[in-house]
Order: sequence, then structure tokens, then C-alpha cells
Amino acid sequence: MSTRTLVTNLAALEDGPVSVSGWVETVRDQKKVQFVILRDESGAVQLVNPAVRELAEDAGPEASARLAITEQISALAHGSFITVTGDLKHDERVKLGGLEVKIGTLEVVTEALPETPIAADSSLDKRLDWRFLDLRNPKQALIFKVQTTLLHAWRTYWVERGFIEIQTPKLMASASESRAELFEIEYFEGKAYLAQSPQFFKQMAQVAGFGKVFEVGPAFRADPSFTSRHATEFTSVDAEMSWIDSHEDVMAMHEELLVAGFTAVKERHGAEIEELFGVEVTVPATPFPRIPLARAKEIVAERGYVVPREDEDMDPEGERQIAAYVREEFGHEFVFLTDYASNIRPFYHMRHEGDPSLTNSYDLLFNGVEISTGAQREHRVDVLVAQAKEKGLEPEELEFYLDFFRYGAPAHGGFGMGLARVLMLMLHEASIREVTYLFRGPTRLLP
Amino acid sequence: MSTRTLVTNLAALEDGPVSVSGWVETVRDQKKVQFVILRDESGAVQLVNPAVRELAEDAGPEASARLAITEQISALAHGSFITVTGDLKHDERVKLGGLEVKIGTLEVVTEALPETPIAADSSLDKRLDWRFLDLRNPKQALIFKVQTTLLHAWRTYWVERGFIEIQTPKLMASASESRAELFEIEYFEGKAYLAQSPQFFKQMAQVAGFGKVFEVGPAFRADPSFTSRHATEFTSVDAEMSWIDSHEDVMAMHEELLVAGFTAVKERHGAEIEELFGVEVTVPATPFPRIPLARAKEIVAERGYVVPREDEDMDPEGERQIAAYVREEFGHEFVFLTDYASNIRPFYHMRHEGDPSLTNSYDLLFNGVEISTGAQREHRVDVLVAQAKEKGLEPEELEFYLDFFRYGAPAHGGFGMGLARVLMLMLHEASIREVTYLFRGPTRLLP
Repeated sequence: MSTRTLVTNLAALEDGPVSVSGWVETVRDQKKVQFVILRDESGAVQLVNPAVRELAEDAGPEASARLAITEQISALAHGSFITVTGDLKHDERVKLGGLEVKIGTLEVVTEALPETPIAADSSLDKRLDWRFLDLRNPKQALIFKVQTTLLHAWRTYWVERGFIEIQTPKLMASASESRAELFEIEYFEGKAYLAQSPQFFKQMAQVAGFGKVFEVGPAFRADPSFTSRHATEFTSVDAEMSWIDSHEDVMAMHEELLVAGFTAVKERHGAEIEELFGVEVTVPATPFPRIPLARAKEIVAERGYVVPREDEDMDPEGERQIAAYVREEFGHEFVFLTDYASNIRPFYHMRHEGDPSLTNSYDLLFNGVEISTGAQREHRVDVLVAQAKEKGLEPEELEFYLDFFRYGAPAHGGFGMGLARVLMLMLHEASIREVTYLFRGPTRLLP
Repeated sequence: MSTRTLVTNLAALEDGPVSVSGWVETVRDQKKVQFVILRDESGAVQLVNPAVRELAEDAGPEASARLAITEQISALAHGSFITVTGDLKHDERVKLGGLEVKIGTLEVVTEALPETPIAADSSLDKRLDWRFLDLRNPKQALIFKVQTTLLHAWRTYWVERGFIEIQTPKLMASASESRAELFEIEYFEGKAYLAQSPQFFKQMAQVAGFGKVFEVGPAFRADPSFTSRHATEFTSVDAEMSWIDSHEDVMAMHEELLVAGFTAVKERHGAEIEELFGVEVTVPATPFPRIPLARAKEIVAERGYVVPREDEDMDPEGERQIAAYVREEFGHEFVFLTDYASNIRPFYHMRHEGDPSLTNSYDLLFNGVEISTGAQREHRVDVLVAQAKEKGLEPEELEFYLDFFRYGAPAHGGFGMGLARVLMLMLHEASIREVTYLFRGPTRLLP
């Protein structure tokens, strides 16, 4: 392994020889001195070369070497990957980190084409065409460092509490949610479908007696919409647990999980997020506010907005209104909307014991956008069959799922949460496309 | 949340009232006393009920309640999920854990159908049909607890060393490996393909300057074979890192990673694995043995086996032979076979500087089975294009990938590893189907 020093570790070193590797962010090719800003995954550092433009007749090998480096730098395209050995010198006058490296040797590992196809003001779509260059921007790269910390904190929360990690199949014989948004695959002599969620399979873990499970994996929706919140492939963060009394137990775990994740992100990246995104990450207080959906719609109406829907559901503007209310009343960025009407929930949500028009379910809103749906599931097979029929589903395609509940099942519930939505809202970004490693939409499969 | 006690935690409690929840593993319905073995995700406990078969004329409410419980237990189908409150009593004479719970109340949460469709001697295929019942077997459930511990140890190893977690798309515009084993999807007006590996996208992270990345996610191969080692969908464990000198740096990380994972599994589950699988988990010593492929074939030949292949590759029997050799010579379960011939490696593997017939690559064998392929990648675009052409690939479909290298790239390498294969070999299981949550093959998409 190369003995390179990460840029972020230079500050702690004493003056002396170092080796750094990264890509060329900028070159300032002045007559007497050349500056190169080299960036790696940890930061940027200024490299300096006293230019030698021509050799005196009595020039020695040192001047020759310096001339060669000078010509190398003059020809250096932005983005080229280089390894430089040289002398580290701490110098308060250097704006970038108070240090610089005087170049001793410069190896161009790979040269970039001279024209970079995107610039700071390129459109999002253009930037996504050249995502591998876009991600060299430290702001974009930070998103995935934050993602790493967030996911690791979440998984650690679960593992420490006895949750089992499952990897559920993405190839299915039938739909897991609605047939409308289903991708179909040529599967040998037949057909298969891409999982729209791990719903059925994480419930299977409950009847298998796993107790508590989690999964972080892809889910697929053949959704033709082009909003800032939708993708045809997204990372779904899922948990499911047995022996709950109601969705309230799921919500209690859900908010603890978010606190664990946000705490880790703030500790690890809080300062950098503030610097690059201008956002102060707030660790939410528990319990999060809880508002039954029907009451939420009243509150929104009291604020002068009537949700233009025939059914009982919210719409995006209603969600923004309720978020504004929650911010004013509770000073909170999160709110659980609870007890959704049965007619706008899937057949597998459990209904209130006393009022079958309502479900033991919730949506979690973060800064006014839905990031998750959770619920207690119906575990009594006769009720489940009746609810499926009521929704007009084909019992035949569901038989494998209904079988799960015919050999005993515990009360259980869980949630699915969109990773990109959490990141988008945490970092105040305008679109999930900014926070997805490689966005997939109806017209985007590349790169 | 229910105030149930996990079975595993009963031993630490003093005698007194407890509540336990789980499923009925067995019922012994004797005339004077009934025993129920209740199992939950943590273990099994004996419940006891002094049977009351009929009421005396002067019977009080206690005897009535006991009669009701007696009748409940007599009617109890195996697999039903129940919650029992009662009195915990430590009693050395009880074989199962030295304790029992005298039933006070018994709630049948959901009743199972009386006939269980699988038994201990059912075929693997039949068991997979009823996987949710199969997984109630503590041996099967342990596999996924081991998986949880293994994955968490691996991710922790990476996170602590600055690796970034990426979630690469599974929907692609073209093949990532070979067109032969590609699943095709109806994608709006066109076609998409399922990723066979995250290869291109983890390399993209290198040119994006991420430095070091990892991913655990599904990969798909339209492979019609029915061996114990193949599936159409599998969990791929991937890592990729920049600024390596050769594949040797990848191997050094790879073996450290395995040590971290095996150490965690042995500490957490070693005793239970020994009990249920009869296997002692061995934490491998580093460095693992390394044998160039050409030398490995000589060794195999010296042992009297000539690999019946036209090309330079090994075959499964050759792999078993080399594993036997490594066990005898080094007392090791792992071996890196290195420097594979270029003609049996993908175009993106880097070739030896002095000998383009060999690659900077390796396969990792565990107990005689390949679990991983790793390599240094070719990062020089002109060489990469030449190698792709030599392999007869369509440069058009590869353009998006080749573009990655046109704007600068660091030296880099990594590996992909099959999670199920590692688990299968660690636990001495005969097939990856046993260690996959829900196996997918050419004729299996259910449940």
C-alpha cells in the first residue's frame, strides 16, 4: 500500500517529507511560482513549485528536475490524478489550512481530458450525466459520508437491541404492493417482478419467530412521475417487530432510532454540514409530536387551507401546513400523523378494534415531507383475507403470503422509510436526486 | 409494548410472576399434568399446568379457570402463538434450563392449522416451500443471527477505517458482467437490466475520489444452473479502494476483514454453533496462504489430479485438492489463489506489467470453495479499451463506463464476495439454499 498521507492528517505532522495522492482541483501557473490545489477524499492542500522556465548553461541536475516538474504542471489538466512527494511546511500565511507542500517529485497517474464537461452552474440533469465528476465536489461527497454514519448508527441501534438483519429477495412471483407500479422481468420461461418493498418478507420473519428484524436494501416502483421525491429505485430502510401492543410501540422505536442516527451525524459531521450546506443538524427531542390524521386535517383547515382531495388523505401542501403548525407549537421538525383511514391504507394494516374505519398506522413527516409509513399489521388470517377481498385483491396471488398466518403469528408491526428522503430533508436539499448515489427515474438509467 | 420476558432472560430472574410469549413447540397432554414447550427467538421454556379434567360440585372459580386452561392446552395446535403469564420456578429437575413456568393465564394469539406441512425429515425443497416454518427451527434461525453479527463486524471494520458505504443501482442500461446471464426488464418504453454486480459503480466511486467504499446488496444472474453454490439472486459483499500498489493490498484488507468477522461470530455464537451445527468456528491466522494459480495447478497435478479443462482455470475438484494441500501444509481453511491468466479474467482486471498473460487478481477459497474474486483494476483508459476489444465486447455499451477513466483515475482494486457461500462454509452446510433467507433459483420464486 502506498505510504501516502491523507490531506486531513497533514496538519498533525511536523515539517518534513510527505507523500500525498489525489486529483488536481486547480492550477495557478504563475511565472515564478506554480500552485496546485490537490484534493483527496479527506480535504485539499496547496502544493507549490518554484518554476524553472529555462536552464542556465551551468544548470545542475536539480534545476533540470525542477524544469521538468514546471513543464508537467503547466500541462496539468484539472481532474488528473497525481501523487506528489515533497516537503511539508506549516505556514500561517497559506489560507488553505496553514500549510503547503513543496513539490519534490510529481507522478501523473492518469491525465484527465482537458475539457471538464460540467461546471459549478451546470443543471442538475447535466451534473447527473457526469455524476462521477459531480461527486468530486466535497459537498456532494459529504452526503455519502453522512449516509455512512447514519446507516451505521441505525444498524448499531438495532443490533444492540437484538434485531436480526435479513436480506429479502427482490425477485418475486407477484406484486408486494400495487400492480400498477410493478416492473416485470423475463424470468427463464416465465415472468418475475421486482419487489416494491420487503413488506411481505419482513412479516414472514415475524411468523418465523425472528422477533425483531431490519433491512436496508433497494426497492423498485415503476412510477412514471418526475417529482423531486420519487425514483424508480430507492433505498428502503425497514424494520419489523413482534409482540407489540399497537403502532405506538413501533413509533417509540422509530423515534429512538432517528435520535441515534441524528446524534451520530451531528457529532461526526455537524461542523462540516454547517460549513458546506449552511444547515445546523438538530437532534430531535422525544417523544415526537403525534397528531391523528383527522385532527391534522382540521388544523390545516383552521390555517385556511382545505386539502383538495375526495378521500381522507393529506396532500403535499397540507403536509407543509402541518409541519409549520408543529414547528410553531412544538418547535419540532418531526411529526407522527396517526390513525389513517382504512380506505387509504393497504389491506394488511390492522384496523382499530372499535372503529374499522381507522387503522393502527402512521406517517412520519420530517420538515413537512413524508419520510415513512408504519403500522401494526393484521395477523389474524380471517380478518386479513376479508380486508384483502374488500380492497379487490386477487387472493390467488396472495396465497403464499396468507399462508404465513395460517400456522400461527404474533402481533407485529413495523415501518419502511426512504433513506434519500431523510438525507434530502436533513441537508435541506431540493431533490432526492442530489442525495442518491446514482438516481434512477423513468428516463434515467445512466451512468 | 408487552412486558414479556425473553426466554433467555428467565434464568436470571428470581422465582415469581412472569409473562412469556412465543409459539408452541410441543405439547405433552398427560392425565394429571400438561406440559407445553414454548419457544421464542431466544430459546425454549417448559410451561406446566396441573390438569383439571372435570369440576367437583363444590368447585370454586380457581378450579373453573384451571379447567378452561386444561381444555385450551388439549386443543393447542403446534405452532400456535401464545402469551402466558404465570409463576417462574427454578427447579434443577427440569431438563430444559432448570426452570419452568406454572401457567396462570394463557392467551392464544393465533391458532395454527392442526397439520404442520413439514417435518424434521422433509426434503430441502419441501422445507423451502414452507420456509417460514423451517426458520422456526433454532438451528435455521441461528444462521441469521450469525449473519447479523458477521455483517455488522464487517461494516464496523470498514466504517472505522474511513470506507464510505454506497448503495449502487440495480437497474442498468446494459450488462455489468456478461450478456449471457442477464435479466431483462420492461422499463417504461424501453428495456433495463438487473445488475450482475456493483463492479462498474464501485469503480465509479474511485474516480469520484471517494477513496474507499463498501456495499452489501443484491446481485442477479440469470444462471440456469442448479448447483448447491448458485442462485439467481444473491447478497454480494463488495469493497473497493484507491491508491493500492497491487492486488496484494486488497488481499491484506480482505483477510483482516474476515478475521474481524470470524472473531465476532466466534465470540458471540461460538458455543451455540458448536451445539447446533457441531462446528468449531476457527478465526483464521494472517497472512492467509497465497499460491499463484499456475503453481496451484502443479500442486494439484502432483497430488494425482489433472484438471480436465482446456484453459488455465481450476475446477471444483481442483479447488478441493488445493484446500486439502493447504490444510495439510499450513493448517489453514483459507487460501488466496493469485495471478490468474488474462484469458479467464474480465477485461477490467489489470495485467502484470512484465507479462500481460497474467492478471493482478485472486480468488479466495474457503474450505475448498471459491467465495470471492478480487483484483487490481485497469485504470488507464487506453489499456482498458484495448482489453475490452480483445474480449470482443461492444465498446458502445461500455462508453458510460469508459468515460469514468477519461477524466483522471487513481490506481484501485477490490473484491466481491458471496455472503451465502461464506455462511455455508463457516457452518459446514451443504447448500447456499440452507443459509439464504429466501432462495431464488430458475424454478423458485416462492414464497
